[in-house]
Amino acid sequence: MSTLNKNIGLIGFGVVGQGFYSYLEENKEEKLLPKIVIKNNNKERDEVKAKFITEADEVINDKSVETVVELISDDKEAFDIVTKALKAGKNVVSANKKMIANNLEKLLELENKSKGRFLYEGAVCGSIPIIRTLNDYYSLDTVTQIQGIFNGSTNYILTQIFKDNVSYQESLAKAQKLGFAEADPTSDVSGSDALYKLLILTTHAFGKFISPSKVLKIGIQNITDSDIAFARENNLKIKLIASVKSNNNKLWLSVLPTFITNDSVFYNVDNEFNAVEVVSESIGKQTLIGKGAGSLPTGQVIYSDYKAPENYKYKYDKILSGKRIKYETQEFIWVYSDKITQFEKYIEEVVIINKSEGYAKVSIADLIKIQEELLDEKLSLIALTDEALKQLNKKYEFAYALQYA
Amino acid sequence: MSTLNKNIGLIGFGVVGQGFYSYLEENKEEKLLPKIVIKNNNKERDEVKAKFITEADEVINDKSVETVVELISDDKEAFDIVTKALKAGKNVVSANKKMIANNLEKLLELENKSKGRFLYEGAVCGSIPIIRTLNDYYSLDTVTQIQGIFNGSTNYILTQIFKDNVSYQESLAKAQKLGFAEADPTSDVSGSDALYKLLILTTHAFGKFISPSKVLKIGIQNITDSDIAFARENNLKIKLIASVKSNNNKLWLSVLPTFITNDSVFYNVDNEFNAVEVVSESIGKQTLIGKGAGSLPTGQVIYSDYKAPENYKYKYDKILSGKRIKYETQEFIWVYSDKITQFEKYIEEVVIINKSEGYAKVSIADLIKIQEELLDEKLSLIALTDEALKQLNKKYEFAYALQYA
Ligand SMILES: NC(=O)c1ccc[n+]([C@@H]2O[C@H](COP(=O)([O-])OP(=O)(O)OC[C@H]3O[C@@H](n4cnc5c(N)ncnc54)[C@H](OP(=O)(O)O)[C@@H]3O)[C@@H](O)[C@H]2O)c1
Ligand SMILES: NC(=O)c1ccc[n+]([C@@H]2O[C@H](COP(=O)([O-])OP(=O)(O)OC[C@H]3O[C@@H](n4cnc5c(N)ncnc54)[C@H](OP(=O)(O)O)[C@@H]3O)[C@@H](O)[C@H]2O)c1
Repeated sequence: MSTLNKNIGLIGFGVVGQGFYSYLEENKEEKLLPKIVIKNNNKERDEVKAKFITEADEVINDKSVETVVELISDDKEAFDIVTKALKAGKNVVSANKKMIANNLEKLLELENKSKGRFLYEGAVCGSIPIIRTLNDYYSLDTVTQIQGIFNGSTNYILTQIFKDNVSYQESLAKAQKLGFAEADPTSDVSGSDALYKLLILTTHAFGKFISPSKVLKIGIQNITDSDIAFARENNLKIKLIASVKSNNNKLWLSVLPTFITNDSVFYNVDNEFNAVEVVSESIGKQTLIGKGAGSLPTGQVIYSDYKAPENYKYKYDKILSGKRIKYETQEFIWVYSDKITQFEKYIEEVVIINKSEGYAKVSIADLIKIQEELLDEKLSLIALTDEALKQLNKKYEFAYALQYA
Repeated sequence: MSTLNKNIGLIGFGVVGQGFYSYLEENKEEKLLPKIVIKNNNKERDEVKAKFITEADEVINDKSVETVVELISDDKEAFDIVTKALKAGKNVVSANKKMIANNLEKLLELENKSKGRFLYEGAVCGSIPIIRTLNDYYSLDTVTQIQGIFNGSTNYILTQIFKDNVSYQESLAKAQKLGFAEADPTSDVSGSDALYKLLILTTHAFGKFISPSKVLKIGIQNITDSDIAFARENNLKIKLIASVKSNNNKLWLSVLPTFITNDSVFYNVDNEFNAVEVVSESIGKQTLIGKGAGSLPTGQVIYSDYKAPENYKYKYDKILSGKRIKYETQEFIWVYSDKITQFEKYIEEVVIINKSEGYAKVSIADLIKIQEELLDEKLSLIALTDEALKQLNKKYEFAYALQYA
């Protein structure tokens, strides 16, 4: 094949686009990139060898382009670009988790009909090669759980809260000032960003496509000073944990602020770092920790997707067995709140620590209901890991015994 | 290509060989494996479809065999097998870290001349895909450090010491009973096994081939009860850490028992788990944690090597730049000992805690000399991480100030 039809069509030249570009430079491949598509023609930009244009179609329909690298911000426009590019038979690389989580089933159909391939390692936990690891190593293994810290902004905010003894609001402001959180942090602090990543991994590990709107998701935006004080008192940290678990052909998912004990690997995953833990039948627990975002860390995996071996594609080998698996919300979680008595009617079991403060066993389905009912109020709920539950039960044995005597 | 010449030649049917075989079964590929080579024809074995034979040459010279999977115990015999197989143009998969660490340069020459490829993910930290991660993601990045817990047996022994409050000897005995340590544990407890893995990663990350005999290596076999007591008093754990660092075209390596503070990711990597931390200029710190050994965890990566995309080979892209890098031993390390005064003449700086107990700054070169001089005596030395040094300095400030007043 001549190099002429090996060109790259880069669409989007923001944080990640520029990171990707710096690897092309490093490897002296800028000549493969005659044009870069951006939105705003009047923005000042670093000088590069490519010509800036504003029409994505111009690179998508360019016969010399073999790989389209889609790195724009909007998810709907991105879906349109990726669809067209796959239809045009291009290899496509993307990092747009929202677009992918919302459209993965359709995207696979498009890929199946295309002579191109669709890779998107950059969409999940930045520099951590979790999709390839699932794809290359877990085909013949049964994954039972994936959980982790999938959002760097919220982890940075939570870390500062515990390190500097500040409130959620102060910590958010600092994270924004330092560029670790966006001006509009909604997608991060609400847990949406973590949820998109969780759903993409759920397809690779369990073969299921689940709509984001169906999943229990509580962000960190309502965490109170008394939640933080309680964590500190008990030598716990709060992390935003996304989790998917499977058992007996059932599947449960959630994104929840969670108390972590100091013997957990997640306890020392701080600042902007992400972590993914995969539990499987054959190899047990495996954990990958690294930077979940940023120009160079994300640019690097985009570059590796672009450079993947010629016949490399994601295999999605769980989709067949996934047909037997049902998404469920009938699973109990222990949650802490300083207003636990507010949800009395949904509570299965409770340990009251003091007045309205305590922790209770509630089903995922009921937590979703509680969220809907309390939509206007600020709901602060922190889940407990099994270890955190054990630790608290030991301490509050007395309260517990009194209630269940 | 007909399936006839896609056969597998499996040599070795022990812990790992049987693990590999179970994935072939799972994927209904046993028919690709008509013969398995073993050593002892009289051993009782689980029934399998393949025929057991004792002549490795019979599969190496078999035209129907495309991939030779070498999983025997001895390193010299393994080198012979791998050499012949590459010369015969076969793809080769191996997990023999001792053989690879001692012969990697020659093996690459053989691979370069062969139409086959040589993959060995199973040789380094079992289930953790660290070689592929370095190969696929770090080509254009500059790695500055790799360190980690590379040996599961020693980590299991050290974990039990701290959990059950037992001595090194008791813990070793328990690990042997449970199958986490070999009957002859020398290669594990002396640090050799960790060193072999470190040297393989050094080639992938820095492009250097270094002989095991040149590297500072202290095992865990001489750890004393008072070392353990000191760790406990200071809320530290001891882990066997293998490390390679590079700066300014210099490279330092060591395998040392090391005090770890409780804010380190390694602190909660316990029992038979391994961890690898890669630090690089573009993506910062990345850590992979998982089972470092065992039949299924190792068998799984052997299977993935066997199944790697057709044109996949390790790239060794650092070998060119590696030519500029020099292996050095002029670097200082802080070490603790309850007999620190024994090495007085080599000490650059010291903090005496009590009589002969203390911690001192010593060069790698001098630590190697100390080891040689004290060959007959039991030498217990525990390195300090930067964080451990900081923590101890704070506590022993007073002692320190007195000495350097
Ligand atoms: N930032 C991270 O660390 C990170 C990590 C993982 C994944 N991601 C994902 O990667 C993607 C890109 O993120 P980013 O942070 O690089 O975004 P960004 O900094 O906001 O940059 C977006 C780029 O896309 C261009 N653009 C927007 N709409 C366009 C359109 N319709 N046609 C052509 N170009 C368009 C913008 O053009 P102008 O330059 O003219 O404004 C800009 O260059 C997103 O999906 C994000 O979720 C980001
Ligand atoms: N065990 C682990 O978890 C692990 C993890 C990573 C890497 N590794 C590496 O993987 C390799 C295999 O380890 P293992 O634990 O599976 O060893 P093992 O249980 O001792 O099994 C060795 C096998 O090799 C056979 N064998 C020995 N010499 C042979 C020869 N000259 N020709 C043909 N067959 C021969 C033995 O035959 P018999 O059955 O007749 O005795 C046995 O089946 C070693 O290099 C080891 O370092 C092991």
